[in-house]
Amino acid sequence: MEKIIGLIDAPFTPFRANGDVNLEPIAAYGAMLKKNGLQGVFINGSSGEGYMLTTDERKALAEEWVKQAPKGFKVIVHVGSCCLRESVALARHAAEIGAWGIGAMAPPFPHIGRIEELVKYCEQIAAAAPNLPFYYYHIPAFNGAFLPMLDLLKAVDGRIPNFAGIKYTYESLYEYNQCRLYANGKFDMLHGQDETILPSLAQGGAQGGIGGTTNYNGRELVAIIDAWKNGDVEAARRHQNFAQEVINVICHYRGNIVGGKRIMKLMGFDLGPNRVPFQNMTDEEEARMKAELDAIDFFNKCNQF
Amino acid sequence: MEKIIGLIDAPFTPFRANGDVNLEPIAAYGAMLKKNGLQGVFINGSSGEGYMLTTDERKALAEEWVKQAPKGFKVIVHVGSCCLRESVALARHAAEIGAWGIGAMAPPFPHIGRIEELVKYCEQIAAAAPNLPFYYYHIPAFNGAFLPMLDLLKAVDGRIPNFAGIKYTYESLYEYNQCRLYANGKFDMLHGQDETILPSLAQGGAQGGIGGTTNYNGRELVAIIDAWKNGDVEAARRHQNFAQEVINVICHYRGNIVGGKRIMKLMGFDLGPNRVPFQNMTDEEEARMKAELDAIDFFNKCNQF
Amino acid sequence: MEKIIGLIDAPFTPFRANGDVNLEPIAAYGAMLKKNGLQGVFINGSSGEGYMLTTDERKALAEEWVKQAPKGFKVIVHVGSCCLRESVALARHAAEIGAWGIGAMAPPFPHIGRIEELVKYCEQIAAAAPNLPFYYYHIPAFNGAFLPMLDLLKAVDGRIPNFAGIKYTYESLYEYNQCRLYANGKFDMLHGQDETILPSLAQGGAQGGIGGTTNYNGRELVAIIDAWKNGDVEAARRHQNFAQEVINVICHYRGNIVGGKRIMKLMGFDLGPNRVPFQNMTDEEEARMKAELDAIDFFNKCNQF
Amino acid sequence: MEKIIGLIDAPFTPFRANGDVNLEPIAAYGAMLKKNGLQGVFINGSSGEGYMLTTDERKALAEEWVKQAPKGFKVIVHVGSCCLRESVALARHAAEIGAWGIGAMAPPFPHIGRIEELVKYCEQIAAAAPNLPFYYYHIPAFNGAFLPMLDLLKAVDGRIPNFAGIKYTYESLYEYNQCRLYANGKFDMLHGQDETILPSLAQGGAQGGIGGTTNYNGRELVAIIDAWKNGDVEAARRHQNFAQEVINVICHYRGNIVGGKRIMKLMGFDLGPNRVPFQNMTDEEEARMKAELDAIDFFNKCNQF
Repeated sequence: MEKIIGLIDAPFTPFRANGDVNLEPIAAYGAMLKKNGLQGVFINGSSGEGYMLTTDERKALAEEWVKQAPKGFKVIVHVGSCCLRESVALARHAAEIGAWGIGAMAPPFPHIGRIEELVKYCEQIAAAAPNLPFYYYHIPAFNGAFLPMLDLLKAVDGRIPNFAGIKYTYESLYEYNQCRLYANGKFDMLHGQDETILPSLAQGGAQGGIGGTTNYNGRELVAIIDAWKNGDVEAARRHQNFAQEVINVICHYRGNIVGGKRIMKLMGFDLGPNRVPFQNMTDEEEARMKAELDAIDFFNKCNQF
Repeated sequence: MEKIIGLIDAPFTPFRANGDVNLEPIAAYGAMLKKNGLQGVFINGSSGEGYMLTTDERKALAEEWVKQAPKGFKVIVHVGSCCLRESVALARHAAEIGAWGIGAMAPPFPHIGRIEELVKYCEQIAAAAPNLPFYYYHIPAFNGAFLPMLDLLKAVDGRIPNFAGIKYTYESLYEYNQCRLYANGKFDMLHGQDETILPSLAQGGAQGGIGGTTNYNGRELVAIIDAWKNGDVEAARRHQNFAQEVINVICHYRGNIVGGKRIMKLMGFDLGPNRVPFQNMTDEEEARMKAELDAIDFFNKCNQF
Repeated sequence: MEKIIGLIDAPFTPFRANGDVNLEPIAAYGAMLKKNGLQGVFINGSSGEGYMLTTDERKALAEEWVKQAPKGFKVIVHVGSCCLRESVALARHAAEIGAWGIGAMAPPFPHIGRIEELVKYCEQIAAAAPNLPFYYYHIPAFNGAFLPMLDLLKAVDGRIPNFAGIKYTYESLYEYNQCRLYANGKFDMLHGQDETILPSLAQGGAQGGIGGTTNYNGRELVAIIDAWKNGDVEAARRHQNFAQEVINVICHYRGNIVGGKRIMKLMGFDLGPNRVPFQNMTDEEEARMKAELDAIDFFNKCNQF
Repeated sequence: MEKIIGLIDAPFTPFRANGDVNLEPIAAYGAMLKKNGLQGVFINGSSGEGYMLTTDERKALAEEWVKQAPKGFKVIVHVGSCCLRESVALARHAAEIGAWGIGAMAPPFPHIGRIEELVKYCEQIAAAAPNLPFYYYHIPAFNGAFLPMLDLLKAVDGRIPNFAGIKYTYESLYEYNQCRLYANGKFDMLHGQDETILPSLAQGGAQGGIGGTTNYNGRELVAIIDAWKNGDVEAARRHQNFAQEVINVICHYRGNIVGGKRIMKLMGFDLGPNRVPFQNMTDEEEARMKAELDAIDFFNKCNQF
C-alpha cells in the first residue's frame, strides 16, 4: 500500500456567523495548504469538529473538499462516529465521491476497553470502503481508548485487508517506533503531534504525519523535515523549537480547535466560530493572543496565501 | 414543576437479527413495564444504545414509544448527542410528537471540563423544547464529565426555565442529597443506581428514580419503595439485597447493556443483539448466566408479562 | 471476633509551633472524645498525618494514646507504611504496648494493582501482631488501590486469622453492603464516610464506623445512630443533614486534615499546624471559616470539653 | 552549576535471601557500571526500592556507595519520603558522608496537587544539604504529581539556590524540551526514559540522563549517545531499537524493578529478591525471560563484568 510521505493537514471546518457550515472557503483553503507544502487533508476530524457536525454536513464537506482539492492532494475523510451505522454510511459515501482514504478514531462512547471491540469497529467501517486505505486514528486523550497499538496491528494484520496504518496522536515515541518496526514496516505510522516531529524523525526513516498546527504553521513544520533530510540538525531544531513556541501560545487559549482556529482569522482567513460546547475566544483574548504571536514574529513565518 | 414519584425504566432498544431497529415489541414492552409498577420510560439513553442509533432511528423509536405508551405512562426522550444540532432537532421532534419530557447527558466528546460549557449545551437543547421538562443525565463514568452537580443547579437556576432536575447516576449520596436540598427541593433529583435505592430513600423523602435493571427486576425494585413507605425496613432490605444479587450477576456479563438485555431473552422477550462495539454474549455465557439467575430464584421474582 | 459498635474517631496529631509532635493534649483529647460518645480512636491514620511522621514519632504517639485512653476506649494504631519492615515493627510495637487493634492502608507507592500483592502486604503486617484484630483501611482516592473489596475478603478468609474487617472509606454503598453480607457477616465493615452514616444504617443492621469529622462533630454523628435506633428517621435526617453542612464547610478549606484540624483551634483546643506539604490555613481563611460555621450554629452543636 | 553529561545508573538494592539489605555487592556493582560507561549512580530511587527501605537501611546504602564508588563516579542519593523530616535527615546525612548530590520525587501521599506544595517540599529538603545539587525526580506515573514542570522551574528559580534540575521520567519530549530551553538552559534536564534517548538527543544538545535498564544494558545505551555524537544516525537507531527490544522483554515481567533485577541474576550477579508488595518472578517466568533475551542475543551485548 502507498505510504504517505510528508505532512497532511487536519483542517478546521468553516462556519458562518449563524453556525451553519460554510463551504465557500474550501477551495482557497486547499490551495493555500498546497502552496505551503502540505500533501493533503484529513477532514472532519477533531480539528474539524467532525463529531459536532450532522451526517449531512459531514457529507457536504467531504464532497467539497474532494471537488476543490488541488491536483495530487490527498483527501482523507474521518468517518468515526459513536453510531457505527453512520460511520459505515460515511465510509461508503467517501468511496463514492472519490476520496483518497478514510479514517476513524475509537468512539468516545461506549468506552472501548478491549482490542477485539476496537477491531470489530474498524473492520465494519473499513469493509464499507474496501478500495480505500483505512487509518485508525489513535487519540486516547480524547476518547479514553488507551489500548496498546502494537496489539491492534497484530490483530488487524491479515484480517482487515485495507487497514493502512495509524494516525498516532499520543506521546509514546517508544510505542510509535515499535509499531513502525512491526512486520518490516508493513503499516503506515503517521506521526500526529507537531511538537515532536524532529525527535520522531531521528528515530525512524522517511515518514508522514498529520498535523493540526499545519493550518497556520505548515511552512515551519515542513521545514523541519526538509532540514533533517538535508542533514542540518541545527536548522531542524530551530524550526521545531519555533513550532513549540507556537504551540505554547495556543495552549494559553484552549488549544488548537479554539485558539488555532482563531489564528486563521488573525491571518486574514476567518473560518468563523467554534460550535458549542467549545467556548469561543473573546475579543480581549484574541488581542492578547495576537500580541503573543507578534512577540515570536509568527506572522512573518506562518503560512502564506 | 411536577416531580416524578416512583421508578422510570430505561428500556433496551429492540433490534432484529440483521441489526435493524425493531419497533414491534414496543407496545408489549410498555404494557409489561406498567404492569410491573413502572411509571414511564427514559428512552434512547445508555441502556437503549441511543448513541449507537442514527437520528432517524432515534426519531422512529420516540414516535413508537409515545404512540404505544400506556395511559399515564411518561415517555422521556434522551436527545443527547456529540452534535448539538442533532440534539436540538431531536428535542424539537420530541416536543412535536408529544413526549412527556427530554433529557441529555454531557457529550463524551468533546470532553466537557467546565460548568459553563455544560450549561450552554443544556441551554440550547432545553430551549428547543421549551414546554417540556429537561433533565440533565449525570453519568460521569460514561462521559468523563466529573463536574459538581450543585454548581450546575446554581448555574441553571433562573437561566434555563424548563430545567427540571438531574438523573443522577453516580455514587455520591452526599452530593445527591445536597442537590436534593438545594433551594428547598426546587429540582427533581432522580436516583439512578438500582443498587442503592434503599439508602437513598433513608436520606430523603418521596423520590423518583430511573432504573436500568427495572427492565427485568422492576417488581422487586418497586417493592423496596413500597416497603419503605410502609415502615418495613427489614422487607426493604430484603428486596434491596435481592436487587444487588441480580446486579452481581449482570456484572459478570459486561453489565446491564449486554448482560441485562440478554436476561430479557431468558424471560421470553428477545430484544435481539447489541450493536458493535459491544460484545454480545455467547450461548455458553448465556447458559452460565441462566444458572446464576436460577440459583437466586430470579425467574420467580422478576417482571411478569 | 468482637465487632465495633458505634463510632471510632481518627484523631489529628498535635504539633508544636516548631513542628514537633506534642503529646501533652492527648489525655484531654481522649477524655473529650469519650465524653462526646466516641468509642475509641484510630491513630496515625490520614487525619493524623501518620505517613508524615517518623517511626519514632508514631511509636511515641501510640504509647501516649494507649496510656491516656479512658477506660474501655479502643486504641487502634494505623501502622501502614511504604516500607513493610517499618509497618511490621510498628505492628509489633502496638501489640507490646497494649493497643486494642491495628490497621493499615495499602501503600501509595509502589502502586498496588493486584489483590495478591495486597494480601501479602496485609498478611505480613497482621502476622506481626497475631493477637490483635487487623483492619484493612480502604481509601483508594488516597493511594490508588481501586481493588474490589469482596475479592479481598475472599482471599484473606482462612488465610489471615486476625483479619477483622475493613475501614471502608469509599462511596460505593453497594460494595460496602456486599462485603457486609459476605459469609454471614463474618467481617467487621467499618463505615468510613461521615456524610453517609444514615444511608448506610438503612442498608444494614447495627454497625460501626470510623470518622474524621467526629473530632469536632461527634455528638451530632452519634445522634444519627441514636435517632435511627429509636426509629426516628426525621431526627436522623436532621443530624445527617447538619453533618453534611459541616463537611460542606471543610471542603472549602482543603478538607478535614487542614480545615478540620483548624476547627479544633476554633473550639479552643489548638493542635498546631499541619506538616508540609499541606498548606496551612491563613488567618484570613480561618476567619472566613469561622463565619461559615457560625452561620450554621456549629459551635452550639459541636463536641464539648 | 555543573551539568551531568552521559548516563547515570539507578541501581537495584541488593537483598539477602532473608530480605536484609546486602552491602557486599556494592563495590563490584560500582566497578561494573563504570566499566560499561556509566557516570554515576542515583541510589535509593524507584529501581532501588528506596521507599521500601527503612531510614537506617537507606543511610547504610548511601554510605557504602559513597565509600565504594570508583574515582570520579557521581553518587546521587534519592532522599524522598512521605515524611519530610525523614527526607531532611537523609539529605543532611548525604551531605555529611560526601555524596555528590541529592534528589527527591514528590511524595505519593499526600497527593501533591499544587506547584506551591511541591516547591515547599523541595525547598526544605534542598535546604538541608545546601552545598549539594538537588534534583527533582519527576515520575508522575508513580506518585500522581502530574504538574507542569516549566512552572516548577519558574517557581524555584531564584528561590531554591541549589535546585540543579529535573530527572524527567515522563513521555512528553515537548515539555522536556521547553524545560531544557528555559532561561538559556539554566537547569539540568536529565532524560529518564531509556526507550527514547535518541529522539531526545535529536531535540537538544549534549545531555545527561538517568537510566534504569543501564544496570544491564548500559553499553548499548551509551552507544546510542556515542553514535549520535559521531553523526552516525543509523548506528544510533540500531542501538536504540535494541534498547527497546530489551524493554519489550522486561515489560512482560512486571517491568524493570522486578524483571530487570532478575536479569542481573541471569548475568551472574544475583541481587536477591524484591520486597513485598512486589511479586517476585517464578523460576518458570525466569526461564521464559531468559529465552526471550537469548532470542535477541542479549547476553552478548549486555554489560560485562
